Amino acid sequence: MPTPATDIDLATAAELGQQLRVDSVRSSTSAGSGHPTSSMSAADLMAVLVSRHLRYDWDNPEHPGNDHLIFSKGHASPLLYAIYKAVGVVSDEELMTGYRRFGSRLEGHPTPVLPWVDVATGSLGQGLPDGVGVALAGKYLDELPYRVWVLCGDSEMAEGSMWEAFDKASHYKLANLIAIVDVNRLGQRGPTDLGWDLEAYRRRAEAFGARVFEVDGHDVAAIDQAMAEAGDLSGERASVILARTLKGRGASEVEDRENWHGKPLPPEMAERAITELGGERHLLVRGPAPADGQPRLRAEQAAEVKLPVYDRGQKVATRKAYGEALVALGARPEVVAMDGEVSNSTFADLFAQAHPGRFFEMYIAEQQMVAAAVGVGVRGYRPFASTFAAFFTRAYDFIRMAAISRASIRLSGSHAGVEIGADGPSQMALEDLAMMRAVHGSTVLYPCDATSAAALVEAMADLDGISYMRTTRGAYPVLYEAGEPFPVGGSKVLRSAEDDQVTLIGAGVTLHACLAAADQLRDEGINARVIDLYSVKPVDTATLSAAAAATGGRLVVAEDHHPEGGIGGAVLEALAEAGRTDLTMAHLAVREMPGSGTSAELLAEAGIDADGIAAAARRLLG
Amino acid sequence: MPTPATDIDLATAAELGQQLRVDSVRSSTSAGSGHPTSSMSAADLMAVLVSRHLRYDWDNPEHPGNDHLIFSKGHASPLLYAIYKAVGVVSDEELMTGYRRFGSRLEGHPTPVLPWVDVATGSLGQGLPDGVGVALAGKYLDELPYRVWVLCGDSEMAEGSMWEAFDKASHYKLANLIAIVDVNRLGQRGPTDLGWDLEAYRRRAEAFGARVFEVDGHDVAAIDQAMAEAGDLSGERASVILARTLKGRGASEVEDRENWHGKPLPPEMAERAITELGGERHLLVRGPAPADGQPRLRAEQAAEVKLPVYDRGQKVATRKAYGEALVALGARPEVVAMDGEVSNSTFADLFAQAHPGRFFEMYIAEQQMVAAAVGVGVRGYRPFASTFAAFFTRAYDFIRMAAISRASIRLSGSHAGVEIGADGPSQMALEDLAMMRAVHGSTVLYPCDATSAAALVEAMADLDGISYMRTTRGAYPVLYEAGEPFPVGGSKVLRSAEDDQVTLIGAGVTLHACLAAADQLRDEGINARVIDLYSVKPVDTATLSAAAAATGGRLVVAEDHHPEGGIGGAVLEALAEAGRTDLTMAHLAVREMPGSGTSAELLAEAGIDADGIAAAARRLLG
Repeated sequence: MPTPATDIDLATAAELGQQLRVDSVRSSTSAGSGHPTSSMSAADLMAVLVSRHLRYDWDNPEHPGNDHLIFSKGHASPLLYAIYKAVGVVSDEELMTGYRRFGSRLEGHPTPVLPWVDVATGSLGQGLPDGVGVALAGKYLDELPYRVWVLCGDSEMAEGSMWEAFDKASHYKLANLIAIVDVNRLGQRGPTDLGWDLEAYRRRAEAFGARVFEVDGHDVAAIDQAMAEAGDLSGERASVILARTLKGRGASEVEDRENWHGKPLPPEMAERAITELGGERHLLVRGPAPADGQPRLRAEQAAEVKLPVYDRGQKVATRKAYGEALVALGARPEVVAMDGEVSNSTFADLFAQAHPGRFFEMYIAEQQMVAAAVGVGVRGYRPFASTFAAFFTRAYDFIRMAAISRASIRLSGSHAGVEIGADGPSQMALEDLAMMRAVHGSTVLYPCDATSAAALVEAMADLDGISYMRTTRGAYPVLYEAGEPFPVGGSKVLRSAEDDQVTLIGAGVTLHACLAAADQLRDEGINARVIDLYSVKPVDTATLSAAAAATGGRLVVAEDHHPEGGIGGAVLEALAEAGRTDLTMAHLAVREMPGSGTSAELLAEAGIDADGIAAAARRLLG
Repeated sequence: MPTPATDIDLATAAELGQQLRVDSVRSSTSAGSGHPTSSMSAADLMAVLVSRHLRYDWDNPEHPGNDHLIFSKGHASPLLYAIYKAVGVVSDEELMTGYRRFGSRLEGHPTPVLPWVDVATGSLGQGLPDGVGVALAGKYLDELPYRVWVLCGDSEMAEGSMWEAFDKASHYKLANLIAIVDVNRLGQRGPTDLGWDLEAYRRRAEAFGARVFEVDGHDVAAIDQAMAEAGDLSGERASVILARTLKGRGASEVEDRENWHGKPLPPEMAERAITELGGERHLLVRGPAPADGQPRLRAEQAAEVKLPVYDRGQKVATRKAYGEALVALGARPEVVAMDGEVSNSTFADLFAQAHPGRFFEMYIAEQQMVAAAVGVGVRGYRPFASTFAAFFTRAYDFIRMAAISRASIRLSGSHAGVEIGADGPSQMALEDLAMMRAVHGSTVLYPCDATSAAALVEAMADLDGISYMRTTRGAYPVLYEAGEPFPVGGSKVLRSAEDDQVTLIGAGVTLHACLAAADQLRDEGINARVIDLYSVKPVDTATLSAAAAATGGRLVVAEDHHPEGGIGGAVLEALAEAGRTDLTMAHLAVREMPGSGTSAELLAEAGIDADGIAAAARRLLG
């Protein structure tokens, strides 16, 4: 590679902007799809940023002092990849033959298969909340002077999650966060709501605590000055650079025109545009270097993790065990926790008290909470985020995108199912297992007692990908001795005999009901095998399969969840995969809309209490 | 019932406020759970509203001119139910013996099992967006002068969805929407982020286009004046009444104290509080009557619905058929559509052009879009809301709550699965079927061609509950003649012979692959039955069961979705329910994280194209 130019002046930055435009046109035309016009509006912004402000060692994306650059408007991937060419980490050939092609790392929207990409974007309104997470790590965990620059689209300012992000940036005084809003006034199907009304955006951003810079997004000197001021870390406010831009800037046939969103220029039009933009260029540039320094994380030694110990028979809520185990895991300095303003219910407050420097109160903003987990994960931390299980539905798009981001985050949802009782259906997670199972590469855990909950919290700390633990509101007896191993993907057979006639499968609260049902049945001379399916995904196919074989294929599955996609689905999908052909399954689940009541009343109404399970077993033995 | 007092003066309103507090304490103490302190802070606000401003015929909740009252802070249900007692529609006995009890309509958080409740609340940040939907109906569809009063908590102002609501209220100039924010400064686990900084709330609300009234929330005269002005419909801005209040107001042992969220007062403390509040009262009051007038909807006659007709073999994207069928359904005046700024992709733009008065552009705010659908549904309209299938994950909490609201809304998600190709995984819905199946009472449809898509869009208009249609990006051949019936819960057997050896099950894009696979297999002398499982929920158990019986239990299920909880899960759960014990199922689904590529490349990579399906069938036949 030729030596890149450094100390880039503004004239060269302007030239670089043209190059980024040309390359955005070229790559998308060659691919036959993509968003060149949305790239061209932001090209000058990024040219100035990358050449003069972004402190980044492109040869070492792991450099701890690197600034972060997140494209919240992920559809501007042609621009991002054009930047990678301009700094010499992606070749022109890769750009022209790889973009959006099968097997290429230059995907339609950026993902972290590229070493310079922190998070996957493409679902709008997520890059800025993710950036808040990175900035939280920078200010409070790493204590390093890197900045987090987030390129935002104007259309995505309609997503509430953007305002959750500004709110938290203000609360946590994140001067290291700079949102650059490319106000090109045109969305996918036409003008945005606020058009070029930069004052309207200013009022909103200022009201949410940010300092605002308005610039002409094609004036490199104005951009440069705003970035110099916005990148200054001495204040306490996040910055927003509102840039008035033209979509398709520089190509007169598409500039500021409707109906050119997400469309490559046809080859002949592309040729004219490239000529108009001054032709192909191959500038190779580098901006400033990152600051030295090591994150605080790396300096701290992990102490020994001493999990809480519970006595068998003692009644302990698994949500409490979650909090107590999390406190213990806090011995590892990379463990971080956050909660959605219900930490006294999820017991994350125990961690907050024990390790206040590594706890972030996210208030009632579940989308931002999950994004913050993803963001601190970008910096190598191991985040645990908690709220009521039902309210993780609020963040499902963020959880799904976290999987595409190859993030490793740990979620704990308390107060699940009809078991919660009087609060009623709005607080009952009855879809969470289905939702979380469907996430790519996810782990779904649902312990029945405090010992297993604590062991699984420890296991989660070292899991890759999205892991989820469902905890229970009520206190139930501890079943397992401390030290019992609970491998992810395992299960426990709690009742078993030579002549078992039926298998009862439960998890969480229904496992206790299965045990009570087995006792009822035993008194009637029926031996029932009982399986604690604490690992819902991956699921213990071997044990399920053996139990099915041993009990004539007769299974009762009881779950405090709607019937679709939960534990019953997990069991059936696993056994189908294993090729079992002899099943008769009674599937007990919450089939009617519940109301309020006591746990016992609601579990009985749904038919997932001991009586319901025993009755189902008797029917199978009919 | 004694005759209720009318023309309530402010002194009586203040008395009423005390009564509402006393009854909030009494009901929650009697139930042993609930949120009295969060009710007491808003009692004066509600006393003035209900006695002097809310135009509502309590004997006729269906009166078309009734104002709407939505408790976005649904946990203040003791206050809401105390209001119902004060207006004489719920007895003191019901309040004291029903609240939060099993089988009672006075659930822990309000739901529309009560005739005066529009929408279920309890997941914060939803009542105001729902109210935007009701207000849209009032201003643009009904054209009636009712107002929508929404009681909001201060904690929920941290939810981005609240700002989506203010943004849309501003865009649509909803002067008929009044948010009353009970700023009691205390959330569940401690102080809110903004505390009593009413100026901070004012700046935000004003920046988002609302007019703001600040009041002492315990000064009935100030409240009265603000409500008189806020309720005036002559302007173009929504109103926000910011009320500084005390949580637990009037009971000195809990007033403005932490750690009293969501806790009933113990009986003795309750007794002292009731004494301090002046004892039990049994005021019976009525506020102003609703205006006369009929909604525009009821005056218009439905024209005949003429569904679009497609020729067999013609290539048409099902998303296009969605748009064209929706235009046809527009002949029914109660059909309304909305979209999340992608109407040129979902083809909702065809409806927008044909019926502009009944189309609402919601920009990129999927939570508000679904809430708006729920809100216009409250007023008797039949909403259809569309965006990319992947982006409905953004609104999952709203969809879940819509089911609890007993809402009937219709969702159309386009661009599903790896079939979308080059845009990559952020735009690929691979979890939507699992997510939507798990919603209580939902209907999940996934047509493979334009004829079935159009027929199913028509069916959706008359479905109760949450219905979801997954449409496809690409254009595929029309398979069915116009007029072919597609009952919800049905399926189509497209290939069938006496000696079928295996059943191939697909829906949407994979149905075409199943047909091509069946052709391949036939050439090898293998007869394969092919089922178009266009109705994923409810699913056609009888046809699946018959096919399993006819083909030796050999099933191949191919779905453009992650393997958990989708079509494979639907088939297995249905056949398990039906007691089939002889299945050998090959389940083809998207098991690895996809990247970009062409549809054909990505379908092949996932093994869900014709070759993958044929190979799976051969393996089953061993």
